[in-house]
Amino acid sequence: MQYSAARAAIHIASVFAIYLSFAMLAPAAVDLYYGNDDWMVFAFSAFFTGGLALACALATQGRPPPISSRFGFLVVNLLWLTTSAVSAVPLYAAASLDLTLAEAVFEAVSGITATGATVVNGLDGLPPGILLWRSLLQWMGGLGIIALGLFVLPFLNIGGISYFRIESATVTDRPFERLSTYVTSLIGIYSALTLLCAICYAAAGMSGFNALNHALTTISTAGFSTHDASMGVYADNFAILWTGIVFMFIGALPFAVMILVVASGRIEALRDPQIRVFASYVVVFVAAVAINLRLSTGLPFLDALTYSAFNFVSIITTTGFATEDYTLWGPFMVACALVATFLGGCSGSTSGGVKAYRFVIVAKLLANGIKRLIYPNAVVSVRYGDRLVDEAVQHAVVLFISAFVTIWLLLTMLLAATGLDILTALSGALTCLANVGPGIGDLIGPAGNFSAVPDAAKWLLALAMLLGRLEILAVLVIASPAFWRR
Amino acid sequence: MQYSAARAAIHIASVFAIYLSFAMLAPAAVDLYYGNDDWMVFAFSAFFTGGLALACALATQGRPPPISSRFGFLVVNLLWLTTSAVSAVPLYAAASLDLTLAEAVFEAVSGITATGATVVNGLDGLPPGILLWRSLLQWMGGLGIIALGLFVLPFLNIGGISYFRIESATVTDRPFERLSTYVTSLIGIYSALTLLCAICYAAAGMSGFNALNHALTTISTAGFSTHDASMGVYADNFAILWTGIVFMFIGALPFAVMILVVASGRIEALRDPQIRVFASYVVVFVAAVAINLRLSTGLPFLDALTYSAFNFVSIITTTGFATEDYTLWGPFMVACALVATFLGGCSGSTSGGVKAYRFVIVAKLLANGIKRLIYPNAVVSVRYGDRLVDEAVQHAVVLFISAFVTIWLLLTMLLAATGLDILTALSGALTCLANVGPGIGDLIGPAGNFSAVPDAAKWLLALAMLLGRLEILAVLVIASPAFWRR
Repeated sequence: MQYSAARAAIHIASVFAIYLSFAMLAPAAVDLYYGNDDWMVFAFSAFFTGGLALACALATQGRPPPISSRFGFLVVNLLWLTTSAVSAVPLYAAASLDLTLAEAVFEAVSGITATGATVVNGLDGLPPGILLWRSLLQWMGGLGIIALGLFVLPFLNIGGISYFRIESATVTDRPFERLSTYVTSLIGIYSALTLLCAICYAAAGMSGFNALNHALTTISTAGFSTHDASMGVYADNFAILWTGIVFMFIGALPFAVMILVVASGRIEALRDPQIRVFASYVVVFVAAVAINLRLSTGLPFLDALTYSAFNFVSIITTTGFATEDYTLWGPFMVACALVATFLGGCSGSTSGGVKAYRFVIVAKLLANGIKRLIYPNAVVSVRYGDRLVDEAVQHAVVLFISAFVTIWLLLTMLLAATGLDILTALSGALTCLANVGPGIGDLIGPAGNFSAVPDAAKWLLALAMLLGRLEILAVLVIASPAFWRR
Repeated sequence: MQYSAARAAIHIASVFAIYLSFAMLAPAAVDLYYGNDDWMVFAFSAFFTGGLALACALATQGRPPPISSRFGFLVVNLLWLTTSAVSAVPLYAAASLDLTLAEAVFEAVSGITATGATVVNGLDGLPPGILLWRSLLQWMGGLGIIALGLFVLPFLNIGGISYFRIESATVTDRPFERLSTYVTSLIGIYSALTLLCAICYAAAGMSGFNALNHALTTISTAGFSTHDASMGVYADNFAILWTGIVFMFIGALPFAVMILVVASGRIEALRDPQIRVFASYVVVFVAAVAINLRLSTGLPFLDALTYSAFNFVSIITTTGFATEDYTLWGPFMVACALVATFLGGCSGSTSGGVKAYRFVIVAKLLANGIKRLIYPNAVVSVRYGDRLVDEAVQHAVVLFISAFVTIWLLLTMLLAATGLDILTALSGALTCLANVGPGIGDLIGPAGNFSAVPDAAKWLLALAMLLGRLEILAVLVIASPAFWRR
């Protein structure tokens, strides 16, 4: 790793930190408007982090280095680390929260990675600034995750299939004009969806402030709520729940496809195989749980379907809202919740987990492998829709899954070493690695939160959220000695 | 699949069933000697299954079909199914056991797959014939597993690296003489180790009958005991425990290497990388748990080391003996036990699980993958020791791991649907798929057994044991439509 690359990476991270410190002015303004003293916390944090970031940005100015995979990995890792640190500053400083350092970092990482696990008790009584800051972190995090999935990870050969690369191949003459159109479309669609979601929530009966906050954390499939009971407060309002279901689902769709449809009117882009697979497993889980719930509780079918759909769309899209403690619905639903935690939505969305396109590819690899065991000389290829999947992507998919399972089990052992029981450790490691939010068990289940977990476990879980968000491999690359060799 | 192939496969399975019915004469003789009426159960079962098998064998005589992968898959699957069915006959028929059909099949499959999960309560009071039959099943199963791993699965491109292929490459002129020497050496070494183990157990203080039974189930890393408390009866006798530790460890070593060392004096074969990796993770787990146990309970270190070594060598080698309920040792040990359940021993041994050689290969694939992400044009190869691992084996390893995790999670959901709680479902599916034996939790943990599990769950778990034993892919091949196409 060369000096100039490190300097340029710090420069980029600093510029992002400056933007983030500007964002702190929004909660400051809200707290000032409501007459809450926390406005000073946000104003000081903005001033402090903004000033520091500006100094770093100025000190690291210079010609950018040639773009390389290494530089990409460095920037991506550094960006998420510095963004987490900056986001944690007002959370740590706010007297109304009273968080330890581990807790502030956990909450910030859970925000910026759009996970939704929280260590805060008494959300309903918190000043609006802090609530808005938590929601804003998730909304900005969601945008960052889409951008990462669309523009960065595919070029590093991990984390997805590049639509952009295919698109730009036809307009190689002016790639940057194309990129800026893309980014503008992305931000436009993301903002419009957020606004629409907020209007629907408000129309369905939420207060304006709650509608805004929940819209910010719904479209980003993130899951912070302004209530300790999460969406349980609105459990009787099916209009709110179905609004949530629809927008969580949309948030887990590939934004590349949405851009194609909205900006270029190319409806056929919706035939992306991952959308079909994602929709299929959502339908299967929701239907199985709804039927089971209907049979075991005797709830009217519409109620059973609504609660099943809300909670399982929430888990599968890696949002993490809950209407109630669904782990009390019986062993089958608990097992479904655990398995659903793996799944995730589409590539280039705000969701986490293993993601549908990986299941598409791994299913084909498995089918091909079995075919080759029967006909050892068979020539087989892996197709995604009508395109061939090249070897690099195939390798990345199976490596991701192997690494995901390995790290999940290692984290489980480490968490158990901090004193967590096996189910809390297993489900906590999984829910953070998949960026979902709630785990299983009394402590970290949908009725609890992560506040009672030891600080050592909070650090480990924050690491898990970052690992999951960077599709694991991007962090392993940075951690490998080969990366640091000249 | 052609008619002649199916006929030949049934013929082979029938011949094996005839041998198995002869084996029933051993428990019949023992029960007759001890004056127990169960001798008739075994004699009748032998007569009945032997007669039926002989009729099938005669009816399906004829020229063997050309050897092909398909034929191999068919024979392997059919053999384990028929062997399980035949083994279950005396267990189902014995009045002293009073098992349902699901229970008899579960116990037989657990025997013949050398898993060691049991549905029988009150082992200490059972007639000797049944106890011997259970132990014999595991011993014969263990031999079958080694043979499968050495001579069959490598040629089907799954489940291991063929040592035999490499060996025979130098003596292509007389392969069959070579094969028979090999088989003779294998049976000789396996029997000699069993005898040695029985002598050590007896010398350390076990009764002759118990020493024989435990030797049969130790060397086969299988885990049926003649006591409900498993090896807990001998918890104060460290000579017995260390005998068990040594022979379980030996049972999980590659028998191909032992044959080379014993029959050809080629000591350098011990440098097989999987032995190093297997020994390393055994040492790491045993040491971590011993230290944790010493610190948390204040046991003298030798005691802590002995109990840690016995129980964790038992789990990692997929034996399944226990000296006590180690799940009461605290959350860290429970997490270690769960993760250790995945590991397994070496290829071509009696152990199950993922197995050390797969970890060797997947670790290299991961390291190579990360190298390729940093240097996209790097040319990388996967080596196992000083040999190149060909693409087919690499593919089979990652497919096995993907299939293992997928099937584990699917089984967990199905088991939960029968009413098992999530931890019982998760650990039950895992322990059967890895052919270990005990799970986690009050029901199926080391202090319990599988008798209280619903019958539907017993069928599912029996299927899991067979899937695990046939390295999953061999069963998936048979279940694929492509296999049955002409």
